[in-house]
Amino acid sequence: MGVFSFWIRWKLKKSLCDKNTYIRISLPAVCFVWQIAMVLLFGIFIRYNEEADAHWVEHKQQHNLTDIDNDFYFRYPSFQDVHVMIFVGFGFLMTFLKRYSFGGVGFNFLIAAFGLQWALLMQGWFHSLDQDTGKIYIGIENLINADFCVAGCLIAYGALLGKVSPVQLMVVTLFGITLYAVEEYIILNLLHCRDAGGSMVIHCFGGYYGLAISWVLYRPNLHQSKHNEGSVYHSDVFAMIGTLFLWMFWPSFNSAITNHGDGQHRAVINTYIALAASVVTAVAISSMFHSKGKLDMVHIQNATLAGGVAMGTSAEFMISPYGALIVGFFMGIISTFGYVIVTPFLAKSLKLQDTCGVHNLHAVPGMLGGFIAAIVAAFASDSVYSHQGLINTFDLTGEYASRTMSTQGGYQAAGTCVAMAFGLIGGAIVGLILKLPIWGDPADDNCFDDEAYWELPEEEEETIAPVLEYNNHMIQKHQDIAESNFSMEEC
Amino acid sequence: MGVFSFWIRWKLKKSLCDKNTYIRISLPAVCFVWQIAMVLLFGIFIRYNEEADAHWVEHKQQHNLTDIDNDFYFRYPSFQDVHVMIFVGFGFLMTFLKRYSFGGVGFNFLIAAFGLQWALLMQGWFHSLDQDTGKIYIGIENLINADFCVAGCLIAYGALLGKVSPVQLMVVTLFGITLYAVEEYIILNLLHCRDAGGSMVIHCFGGYYGLAISWVLYRPNLHQSKHNEGSVYHSDVFAMIGTLFLWMFWPSFNSAITNHGDGQHRAVINTYIALAASVVTAVAISSMFHSKGKLDMVHIQNATLAGGVAMGTSAEFMISPYGALIVGFFMGIISTFGYVIVTPFLAKSLKLQDTCGVHNLHAVPGMLGGFIAAIVAAFASDSVYSHQGLINTFDLTGEYASRTMSTQGGYQAAGTCVAMAFGLIGGAIVGLILKLPIWGDPADDNCFDDEAYWELPEEEEETIAPVLEYNNHMIQKHQDIAESNFSMEEC
Amino acid sequence: MGVFSFWIRWKLKKSLCDKNTYIRISLPAVCFVWQIAMVLLFGIFIRYNEEADAHWVEHKQQHNLTDIDNDFYFRYPSFQDVHVMIFVGFGFLMTFLKRYSFGGVGFNFLIAAFGLQWALLMQGWFHSLDQDTGKIYIGIENLINADFCVAGCLIAYGALLGKVSPVQLMVVTLFGITLYAVEEYIILNLLHCRDAGGSMVIHCFGGYYGLAISWVLYRPNLHQSKHNEGSVYHSDVFAMIGTLFLWMFWPSFNSAITNHGDGQHRAVINTYIALAASVVTAVAISSMFHSKGKLDMVHIQNATLAGGVAMGTSAEFMISPYGALIVGFFMGIISTFGYVIVTPFLAKSLKLQDTCGVHNLHAVPGMLGGFIAAIVAAFASDSVYSHQGLINTFDLTGEYASRTMSTQGGYQAAGTCVAMAFGLIGGAIVGLILKLPIWGDPADDNCFDDEAYWELPEEEEETIAPVLEYNNHMIQKHQDIAESNFSMEEC
Repeated sequence: MGVFSFWIRWKLKKSLCDKNTYIRISLPAVCFVWQIAMVLLFGIFIRYNEEADAHWVEHKQQHNLTDIDNDFYFRYPSFQDVHVMIFVGFGFLMTFLKRYSFGGVGFNFLIAAFGLQWALLMQGWFHSLDQDTGKIYIGIENLINADFCVAGCLIAYGALLGKVSPVQLMVVTLFGITLYAVEEYIILNLLHCRDAGGSMVIHCFGGYYGLAISWVLYRPNLHQSKHNEGSVYHSDVFAMIGTLFLWMFWPSFNSAITNHGDGQHRAVINTYIALAASVVTAVAISSMFHSKGKLDMVHIQNATLAGGVAMGTSAEFMISPYGALIVGFFMGIISTFGYVIVTPFLAKSLKLQDTCGVHNLHAVPGMLGGFIAAIVAAFASDSVYSHQGLINTFDLTGEYASRTMSTQGGYQAAGTCVAMAFGLIGGAIVGLILKLPIWGDPADDNCFDDEAYWELPEEEEETIAPVLEYNNHMIQKHQDIAESNFSMEEC
Repeated sequence: MGVFSFWIRWKLKKSLCDKNTYIRISLPAVCFVWQIAMVLLFGIFIRYNEEADAHWVEHKQQHNLTDIDNDFYFRYPSFQDVHVMIFVGFGFLMTFLKRYSFGGVGFNFLIAAFGLQWALLMQGWFHSLDQDTGKIYIGIENLINADFCVAGCLIAYGALLGKVSPVQLMVVTLFGITLYAVEEYIILNLLHCRDAGGSMVIHCFGGYYGLAISWVLYRPNLHQSKHNEGSVYHSDVFAMIGTLFLWMFWPSFNSAITNHGDGQHRAVINTYIALAASVVTAVAISSMFHSKGKLDMVHIQNATLAGGVAMGTSAEFMISPYGALIVGFFMGIISTFGYVIVTPFLAKSLKLQDTCGVHNLHAVPGMLGGFIAAIVAAFASDSVYSHQGLINTFDLTGEYASRTMSTQGGYQAAGTCVAMAFGLIGGAIVGLILKLPIWGDPADDNCFDDEAYWELPEEEEETIAPVLEYNNHMIQKHQDIAESNFSMEEC
Repeated sequence: MGVFSFWIRWKLKKSLCDKNTYIRISLPAVCFVWQIAMVLLFGIFIRYNEEADAHWVEHKQQHNLTDIDNDFYFRYPSFQDVHVMIFVGFGFLMTFLKRYSFGGVGFNFLIAAFGLQWALLMQGWFHSLDQDTGKIYIGIENLINADFCVAGCLIAYGALLGKVSPVQLMVVTLFGITLYAVEEYIILNLLHCRDAGGSMVIHCFGGYYGLAISWVLYRPNLHQSKHNEGSVYHSDVFAMIGTLFLWMFWPSFNSAITNHGDGQHRAVINTYIALAASVVTAVAISSMFHSKGKLDMVHIQNATLAGGVAMGTSAEFMISPYGALIVGFFMGIISTFGYVIVTPFLAKSLKLQDTCGVHNLHAVPGMLGGFIAAIVAAFASDSVYSHQGLINTFDLTGEYASRTMSTQGGYQAAGTCVAMAFGLIGGAIVGLILKLPIWGDPADDNCFDDEAYWELPEEEEETIAPVLEYNNHMIQKHQDIAESNFSMEEC
């Protein structure tokens, strides 16, 4: 990239040393300590549940079950779709920056792989612990929930993208998973809310968690990395891989842990419809806000997904197909609007640097999705759901048998507030921890640059080197001629 | 890209204004009007079917059904594969152009998302309308069919890629879905043909629909955009993502709505085998037609898929594994041959500009697939299918119970002709509509360029700017020296 | 790419002719002969099995079966995941080289598509041949096994990437599939080993097969292609697509043909957990070995997968979740270590050129996975598996009913040795065949270059041409001025 860029690189490398992005000790140390802790804790706590244990063949005979009665067959296809969303969806969506694609997809991979282990334990203690044996018994549903839990942290990563070190991300993930498990326990168990696709517990929590961290870690001189904050043509195409896999598999996300049968079926239909509407309105608003009506890839990559986020909680409800369409319709508008108006406003007035705009894609649509579901729940009735259908959908059994639907709606709204509070307060505290000068985060002028944490192939030099060499050669030659003239003159 | 390219860009921008690709009003207007229409029509017509309704739990008890008796579990994995084909498969296959990747994947996304809503309605009116209630009851099979319906329009988009505006594409989609629903009704219901994977109703129709539109919209000066018509190294790799996801999931496409059990099982096997053979023969022909035996990415990206197209109708028939292999064998040859010989011939003699070569991948293999299936159907017998198997496979019940297999074969062939006629005539009419000067289509010299409809990141400038800057600096310096010599001379 | 690169290209083209990479006759000939042979052999041997035959509807009635009793529904979602691993996973993992992405993904496509046909036959003769009718009856499980079989050859391709012609790859595949079918028969049937995910039969065999071929084909002057051996920024991102799809779908790979119910369920859990641990430890070791703690994309793309390879055999055993975690933990370390230390050592001392490092990702983890499973099997007991569970998991029925678990462990270990021996000896023989000077392989100085076998788009010229042109123009101008001065001087 020429003399200029070599100079810039050299400066960057120097500042890297100044700011100490040297993570040769801290990153391996954190990885090893935590991974060994996982081995020990898995050894103490985690076992297969009865459907995954070799004893199942006897269990099956005793309970007169057939092969298909294993929950595996009802959940596994959805699980794999969710898995793709976590690793390819989130990972590739974050490759859009021109010089941070390795960090986008690579750190996403690292923290998701670590996070799901910790999530199996944290969620296991809250939801799958057998009081008698003290063991956590896991099956396919635990894997799905672990992936869900990780999604919350990856959303937070979206707000921090390019501005933190991998060690900091491991800390964000450790605390994020922990907070998630607690808020999820409060929302789903104590408040007895329904939240199949996690508008509240995943998107609202994850979005505000990331925003709060980012707010605490505000960098006044981030403009020094402005040359790296943006996309190039091919990085935008890579990001579309992420967008599309998220978009396509969102019906699986919202239906993965809903009730067998009509629950999964309905959640798929609602999400499919809501997402379709988001795309059309996001395109409309994107075009409307450009002076020549051109589309902006940022909106297409993100706002098109807002319908899926907002349907997270109510996907399993009888919101009706047109209800889903209306939700998607408005979410596409609101989210695109957020990218055009709100993000720049927040950056200026609130000093909130939100790299991927998670505010517009997760925080706000997640929160709205929570409140929409509260309204839908409040109006649910026997006539629409059937008596048994209402009980099944909202799991109104045992101590909750007598809860009225308007009460349920109130609890759903309360749950949304709990998720937001956990995100904001938890994020603020984690942000303060991350301000300690020990984490190897990049300097203001080398944010959004893979150079800091990755051994990079020498692409541009490679491509342009021959041109430069040839130019230098020719210029030298003419310089010689010119100078020889000059010297002749002088004589 | 230097002075030259700045000049080219400036010219382009100027001509953009001349040709009025200003779509700031028309695109949002079309999106909003049609999306609001969808909300209203969904509100009036669309409801969940019994398997997706919360009443299902009571329905299940009444009919003594188990969890698994929900069609959802037989179709959902295939549905998700089809969904990936529509959005990632078609989308990325169309990223191969060097400067039209955003348009390829982005407009594909837009028109598919709009189209599937309209398809749910159009197909619903023809196939899922309850006469008593006047409602359309939808479930997973409707979602699959909506995706299928959209595929027809995306095929048409392949012929138009880079030459039309997004507003025109919305029009193509609106009419395309409508025509599709009518021809599908005629072929499947009135003629009582079988067409599981849509060789006729999807590929043959969609291919000829796109070709007819493209023929009407012939641009005599398209060579002015020649510099953008072609791929670059990485855009070809992106296109391979599309190719592979189409190729891999084609067995799901052809089996998604076939009969439970042996129907789906057999359709998968046949498609898998036919596709494998296409790859090998497409490679052979591609190598054979190059002076040094080199392979052409266009053939690998497209002709390898022809086996799947041609097996669309007969995938569920007892064509036998070697029958499928033979179909794939010849389709790989015919399709590659089409790319080498027929497309250039059509462009010259018929004035048919077919960007992606849908003639060779969809129109012809789809038509041939229809006729192959007619022959296979005509020779179907009780001994090969079993008596009940024959009835089930061809749905020869009710008024069709007495139809002989040779009659069925005749109807299958007739169905193929209907699909082709709908494509050609419908496409010609839609093409005329698109000639109106109100749609914001690009000028001849800025086709195949995302610049027209997308806010682009400034990639090349970014990469080469420092080189240029440095060069200018050095050249200026030597110019100064030289001129100083010169002026000295003059003195 | 300037004068230098034009000169390099011209030299390359010249040397191409010297070395005769002209494959216009050999490649089509091999493709056609083999594909026609497939048609004939399929015609003679291959039929649908009863679950895919239209007679199934009667079979179902006779045996009182329901729709879901078709094995299709238990295997198809896993099959599609495996299919994605074979074509997108392996294919894109091999796009990492800067100038060999077409060859990586394209030849992978070709040999997989040919290989699976031959695998259906070879495995069919050994496993699915009906002695009475002399036919091979295929269903979904045969398709999965054919994909597995192909995986062995694609692993071998990883060692040869960039150094062989497509014709040679067809030969590698033909013999590879044949050897695979034989060693698989010996290991699974004669030794009665269990190997659900193929640590032994796929990874250990495939890895050593590729390494032995590569060793025989040693090129002392490969350094002449050094300028092409390496990645660029975007090719590394493409390779991450391959990595992630392999990583995500590995649970499906290891569970695709295990027992219904707990077998599949457990295999998924074990693989999921092992893979998660590999990622964390691979990152740790990668960082630890770089002077500044930076991560290396080669490790992230490959070593993160080692946990899945090593769990191949024991995924269906009761290894327990923490056992799986420990396996993943060490495999991430060993594999990354291999990339840092062992591959350079092998290249130097053993003259083994292993392009993708399959030694570290497949050969060694596969072998270790085989031995780990031997130990796990030897310690299996009724108390852990239940009596019936133990019999089912290890299929200890018929003549094997009396085999003790320690004996089984011994056989498992022996099976691993058989796989390795087949790989090494078979590979050496195939390597010698490939040394014949008739296969059109590239010269030492045009390895890792798509130019040899692909019609390439002119990317770099396109991008930089205007710069060069402008420079030449300016330089010429100043040269003229300078020379005019000079000549004036002379006068």
